[in-house]
Amino acid sequence: MATSCPTFIGSDNLSNDAPSVSSSVVLTQDDLKKIAAFKAVEFVQSGMVVGLGTGSTAKHAVDRIAHLLRQGKLKNIIGIPTSKKTHQQALSLGIPLSDLDSHPTIDLSIDGADEVDPDFNLVKGRGGSLLREKMIESASKKFIVIVDETKLVKHVGANGAMPVEVVPFCWKFTQESLQKLFDYAGCEAKLRSTSVGGGEKGEAFVTDNGNYIVDLFFKRDIGDLKAAGDAILRLAGVVEHGMFIDMATTVVVAGEHGVRLMPDEK
Amino acid sequence: MATSCPTFIGSDNLSNDAPSVSSSVVLTQDDLKKIAAFKAVEFVQSGMVVGLGTGSTAKHAVDRIAHLLRQGKLKNIIGIPTSKKTHQQALSLGIPLSDLDSHPTIDLSIDGADEVDPDFNLVKGRGGSLLREKMIESASKKFIVIVDETKLVKHVGANGAMPVEVVPFCWKFTQESLQKLFDYAGCEAKLRSTSVGGGEKGEAFVTDNGNYIVDLFFKRDIGDLKAAGDAILRLAGVVEHGMFIDMATTVVVAGEHGVRLMPDEK
Repeated sequence: MATSCPTFIGSDNLSNDAPSVSSSVVLTQDDLKKIAAFKAVEFVQSGMVVGLGTGSTAKHAVDRIAHLLRQGKLKNIIGIPTSKKTHQQALSLGIPLSDLDSHPTIDLSIDGADEVDPDFNLVKGRGGSLLREKMIESASKKFIVIVDETKLVKHVGANGAMPVEVVPFCWKFTQESLQKLFDYAGCEAKLRSTSVGGGEKGEAFVTDNGNYIVDLFFKRDIGDLKAAGDAILRLAGVVEHGMFIDMATTVVVAGEHGVRLMPDEK
Repeated sequence: MATSCPTFIGSDNLSNDAPSVSSSVVLTQDDLKKIAAFKAVEFVQSGMVVGLGTGSTAKHAVDRIAHLLRQGKLKNIIGIPTSKKTHQQALSLGIPLSDLDSHPTIDLSIDGADEVDPDFNLVKGRGGSLLREKMIESASKKFIVIVDETKLVKHVGANGAMPVEVVPFCWKFTQESLQKLFDYAGCEAKLRSTSVGGGEKGEAFVTDNGNYIVDLFFKRDIGDLKAAGDAILRLAGVVEHGMFIDMATTVVVAGEHGVRLMPDEK
């Protein structure tokens, strides 16, 4: 169902309370992210093992969970962080943490996404944490994706890069192989660097797992995502790709006209 | 065609010359490896870019190529080593080296295998170098596999482990996922350790790429290898598996009754 959008005077009011309603509306993109995050955290129940996502939207969900724990509204939560960065954030907020080895089944994960296609397939990894996110979110009974409406796309890659984590060994060869694989979609493959703005030459960006990221930019729809995913994984230098296919169970979308859940519930 | 087996008085005569014929035959397994390696190196021609395999059999091929270079019988070879170990060996022997980034197309690779099935699919990686080997051998126009006859098996995994390279992050989870995936084949998944003999607890074995190896032991045939390979690669913690499917163009098998090429040539 589409739920009505809470409105705000400004983002200050959002800080760590549940969104409060007001007649004046000035919503920034960050407000929308926070609204989606707060909505998703409503699904968290005491006693759950919760996968904690990474990125600017997921950060709000982690903050919110910590806030509810401090308030005593949630109890006995175990968080499974999807990156070193989220681990640090959750640790500093006092959320009890564990890992997949100790908790191989996760009740619920909450994370952002870079793109969501009409079938709720995702692109993730523009922040660089796609591998750990995929491991943890694959192991989750429910996976709630939180986005603002700018992330909804017609097809994967329509609005930016599809990241692929590759081993550093002969990454140029792997980059070229990836580009050739998607020649039919006008693919340009670029090694991600640490330089701000992209274009200039910087150090290669290194993932939490010591690997590199090759970003694939498609001019056209790549078609069958499962076939594309398998073809990417069959390249020996590839560790993982950023398409999360058939994984999201709920997508929470916050937009100027409200927050809604997809697929529509009830 | 099956070619007749050169015979030897002892392994000393094999050191760095082409095998010489004698009436007395006492062939060790290492002799057989060397015979296969020498046969494979006959396919190397001057000017070629050659993938240099890793392991006790491939080592003989690298030695042989260096010997022929020193003799002037081969010229202008560029070697592409498949591991740090082979890189060191080839460097010490004076073989000019490069890598996949500079030479994305390789004329010929020569490497050993742990198992060869009736369709010439391979198991590789018991020595730990499966990822770099697969990258380089996938990029080769011809891939000659050199084995002694003990490596011929009825099906993949019939004679030992099928290795899978995994990221260290939550490796136990990945190990359990792999074991579940092949539950139907009575799979036991074990992290490879550096302890000799296996059983005892040692440090985790670390690959050239900083990853771990999980060895899969199957009680029964796993069936369709391509489907199995894709299913393994879809596990997010997996980097690569040790099945080399449809990659070998020629298999050189050395046995007590001779050296033969498969598939049979002319």
